[in-house]
Amino acid sequence: MKKWDIVKSSVVHKNKYFSLVEEIFCLDSGETGKYFMIKKPDFVSVVAIEDDSVYFIEMYRYTLRRKIWEIPMGGIEEGESPMVAARRELREETGILAKKMKRIGYSESFKGQSDQRFHTYIAEGLSFGAQDLDEMEKESSVKLLKLKISEVPDLIRSGKITDSHTIASFSLFMLNYKGSK
Amino acid sequence: MKKWDIVKSSVVHKNKYFSLVEEIFCLDSGETGKYFMIKKPDFVSVVAIEDDSVYFIEMYRYTLRRKIWEIPMGGIEEGESPMVAARRELREETGILAKKMKRIGYSESFKGQSDQRFHTYIAEGLSFGAQDLDEMEKESSVKLLKLKISEVPDLIRSGKITDSHTIASFSLFMLNYKGSK
Repeated sequence: MKKWDIVKSSVVHKNKYFSLVEEIFCLDSGETGKYFMIKKPDFVSVVAIEDDSVYFIEMYRYTLRRKIWEIPMGGIEEGESPMVAARRELREETGILAKKMKRIGYSESFKGQSDQRFHTYIAEGLSFGAQDLDEMEKESSVKLLKLKISEVPDLIRSGKITDSHTIASFSLFMLNYKGSK
Repeated sequence: MKKWDIVKSSVVHKNKYFSLVEEIFCLDSGETGKYFMIKKPDFVSVVAIEDDSVYFIEMYRYTLRRKIWEIPMGGIEEGESPMVAARRELREETGILAKKMKRIGYSESFKGQSDQRFHTYIAEGLSFGAQDLDEMEKESSVKLLKLKISEVPDLIRSGKITDSHTIASFSLFMLNYKGSK
């Protein structure tokens, strides 16, 4: 066996949202190491733009015990493509339908403990339908916000937007958006 | 009890790196909900700059099963201030000592499952000593990289840099750095 090869893998805990897996792996010395991995489906994030504006949502985050501003995001369901997930999540969380949806890259969400990554999309050509929130989202008072694209950098700098996944997605967007002009 | 108040909290699993806690909380209806929280110490990320360059490290990430490019980061130890942790992590991972270390903000690392956040610092006035890697870092072939600040955006856009925590930290840096010119 080579370095990093997995000798043994056991599910330590499993719930509806993720599994916790203990992995024993090889080292060059012949000894073994141990790693605890969080296994969670990949997700998508969507930067939905309209003229010079971008849609954010405000929602209560149980983990943080406060409301934050973030862009629409959500897990990819089994058998679903990232593109289909991006359209579904955008519609469910905001009621927005997009004519054009373009993938601009992916990022790792939590590399220290998980292999989860998220794919980022730009949504354009927007029209509005009805939200279709899941139970937790309903409880979390999801509210749609329309911000000027040009004001977002300052909202990040000043600490109003603090979610690293939103900031990484928005960076990817800005780098691609400017590039396409 | 009010909405979101915690009725019961139990540690489901604990290892050297994090705990997994099951929380039962109140809803308005009088019913309860359940959340699985990953409790992990906060960490720091450091953007170390010298003239028009920034230091990155290349290291093998067990979770991703490949080497990635990221900025120096690491957990805050018990009783340690974020500033002290930032100096320590920078020195241990890269051998770099910084005359000036300035906090520019924080971000949440994994809001869906954890309240963990990370504080981002700009390090300036750099001098070089010896690295002092921990066991896992030694195994992970940590290598210091000196990049031009101006080339980083394109490394993000093109998918060479994919760690969301690095991208969020670098965004915060660019927003503050440009602002101070």
